[in-house]
Amino acid sequence: MHSLETTILTIGQQARIASRALAQLSHDARNHILLAMAEEMDGSQTEILEANARDVEAGRERGLSEAMIDRLTLTEARLQSLAQDIRDVAALPSPVGETIREWTRPNGMRIVKRRTPIGVIGIIYESRPNVTSDAAVLCIKTGNAVILRGGSEAIHSNQALASALQRGGNRAGLPENSVQLIPTTDREAVRLLAEMDAFVDLIVPRGGRSLIETVVRYARMPVIKHYHGVCIAYVDKDADFSMAQSIVLNGKTQRPGVCNALESLLVHKDIAAEFLPALAEHLREAGVELRGDAATQKILAPHVRAATEEDWSTEYLSLILAIRVVDDLDAAIAHIEKYGSHHSDVIITAHSETAERFLREIDSATVYWNASTRFSDGGEFGFGAEIGISTDKLHARGPMALEELTTYKYVIYGDGQIRS
Amino acid sequence: MHSLETTILTIGQQARIASRALAQLSHDARNHILLAMAEEMDGSQTEILEANARDVEAGRERGLSEAMIDRLTLTEARLQSLAQDIRDVAALPSPVGETIREWTRPNGMRIVKRRTPIGVIGIIYESRPNVTSDAAVLCIKTGNAVILRGGSEAIHSNQALASALQRGGNRAGLPENSVQLIPTTDREAVRLLAEMDAFVDLIVPRGGRSLIETVVRYARMPVIKHYHGVCIAYVDKDADFSMAQSIVLNGKTQRPGVCNALESLLVHKDIAAEFLPALAEHLREAGVELRGDAATQKILAPHVRAATEEDWSTEYLSLILAIRVVDDLDAAIAHIEKYGSHHSDVIITAHSETAERFLREIDSATVYWNASTRFSDGGEFGFGAEIGISTDKLHARGPMALEELTTYKYVIYGDGQIRS
Repeated sequence: MHSLETTILTIGQQARIASRALAQLSHDARNHILLAMAEEMDGSQTEILEANARDVEAGRERGLSEAMIDRLTLTEARLQSLAQDIRDVAALPSPVGETIREWTRPNGMRIVKRRTPIGVIGIIYESRPNVTSDAAVLCIKTGNAVILRGGSEAIHSNQALASALQRGGNRAGLPENSVQLIPTTDREAVRLLAEMDAFVDLIVPRGGRSLIETVVRYARMPVIKHYHGVCIAYVDKDADFSMAQSIVLNGKTQRPGVCNALESLLVHKDIAAEFLPALAEHLREAGVELRGDAATQKILAPHVRAATEEDWSTEYLSLILAIRVVDDLDAAIAHIEKYGSHHSDVIITAHSETAERFLREIDSATVYWNASTRFSDGGEFGFGAEIGISTDKLHARGPMALEELTTYKYVIYGDGQIRS
Repeated sequence: MHSLETTILTIGQQARIASRALAQLSHDARNHILLAMAEEMDGSQTEILEANARDVEAGRERGLSEAMIDRLTLTEARLQSLAQDIRDVAALPSPVGETIREWTRPNGMRIVKRRTPIGVIGIIYESRPNVTSDAAVLCIKTGNAVILRGGSEAIHSNQALASALQRGGNRAGLPENSVQLIPTTDREAVRLLAEMDAFVDLIVPRGGRSLIETVVRYARMPVIKHYHGVCIAYVDKDADFSMAQSIVLNGKTQRPGVCNALESLLVHKDIAAEFLPALAEHLREAGVELRGDAATQKILAPHVRAATEEDWSTEYLSLILAIRVVDDLDAAIAHIEKYGSHHSDVIITAHSETAERFLREIDSATVYWNASTRFSDGGEFGFGAEIGISTDKLHARGPMALEELTTYKYVIYGDGQIRS
């Protein structure tokens, strides 16, 4: 067998064994392990920063953009914050073992639907080395073994981080091979991992479209995708203008590079001429480029260039906003269903029937009435942690946290019942 | 574009449109549609039975086994029972729209996690034409559009059943194309359907391993598999012998051809010599062939042939039982984790600590203490209906019913909140 195949297969087998041991630990034992990981993270700062410096230097040589270099760079402060994140996760309640539902059948059999770890989770990610720690910690918290596969730009940082987590964890009783980092950045490893459904129960790809596409093409196990967000705001004719302005500005400008930022704005035709000019001025002041349909161009001329068909479904991740004037709620819903990515969408209106129709008919992971789409986030939802924001519909939809890293089993208590 | 591609693509697009309309109907409207479907099923008996007779005749000509012919055959009584099943589903409460959880954030934002339809579900199945009705009805009940793809042996029956359901439904306001049957049994259609993630949110394959493998290989959307069941019973040294005997007999002989029937038996070494002979006699009386490890052969000689390594992981689906004597609970757990299929497993013991360890450590969809594995069934669980028994871990595990045909979205009520 090809040696890469052997490597990946061994990692998978080891992870399966680790997952069984890990699932049997108590909450206290798992939290104790997490605290030891945080401690080791603190103690290994020099080593991690040295490894990171090698990656950053290599990145500069390869001509990575400043934004990429920034994502790649670890500092003492960032490492301290990572260690603190681990302690915060240790302090969270664990969903594992929870009784989801419990009932007794007429024949006396008691059925308990109980939350359990998933088993082995593969996390495939790019550039940001902090994912190494974040993902491993959330998996261990929920009793899952994890196989990490980071990007080549961060290979030394990832190795140093994973080593620190393993060292700390092992000292506190973490079953061997509970946290494994694939030691190569060969793309072929992604395919081999994705095909290994005997040992991997779930893959979560976190990265660009091409990475996710590769995983989806090969994966034989469930994949929870974290695709892009084309988030859209609809300002209804019954909107409070100042609230609408504030929600649109927040959605577009507070952090434009993330998936829950706004990309398009729909405005009801009855208020467009009154609402848009003041908003546009604020947006331009914030450096936002506007692209509009004919009606918007007419109202805001000469400050708007024409939006193309492509604009409506583009995730800019930068200070650009596409604006369209729509006839009514139906047109807004039709636009969002056609062009949106079903991530997070918002209606601003004072009219509750209009809002309820929007909330009901928009088929997105998160639908807002009068609040910023920027709240689509595990932390902001109060989950205490986040593995990402799922754009899939099954198992995990929207912000994905500890509970979404678990499954369940049915535990049945009988006293001799047989089926007749 | 190739015409089959166009056909499948059109079916997908139509299903997506239908699913949006279907999701907006009230429970009453959906139930009214189901009752009209049942009525039309009753009224179309002649037509359906004629179509079925063509399939049965073709099946005989092609030399299908009697068991296959029986699975394929519809009768007046079976059709009446299908129509009654539809009425029963109409009478069930619907999980759609249910609030799963609801909370308010410190900033005043109210978050409601609400159950919604999944969207478009593809069901790929073999031989039994009743799946056409069962699957369509459960999907409509939960507000999902369905694309059906039955086997070639039942093509006329499936078409007649789907037509009746469509006719009845449409008369009662079912959105057009909510129930579509792929009009060809070309295998290529399965691949095209599985690749169409833009329009299909979930595929449920119900059939043999080769069908499931094909779907898994191509699918770009979630697949919930209904694989085989290698269900295993462990009779502990502290078992009540008569209870153990009754549970093993029931698991093996009550209906051997189904996935929740027993395939293997593990017996604690301390009681094997005392327990096995009486059990073996009852099993042999019921026509069960026994295959055993060396210890079992010694106890039951000459009535047991040697079990091979392959026997331990075989789903016989017939009157054969593999028996092994194990040293202790650890050995039993290790055997089940290695050879079982994580479907349904049972321990028979009077000792609660032993039982709790088994229930905790066996990672199967359903784990039993002192009850027959034959209860792994949506109806027996009290779900009122069943789309199948999932052998997957995510979204649906074990008996899969109405709730598992739904997903959720987060609905957020604000009064102008923005993120700082």
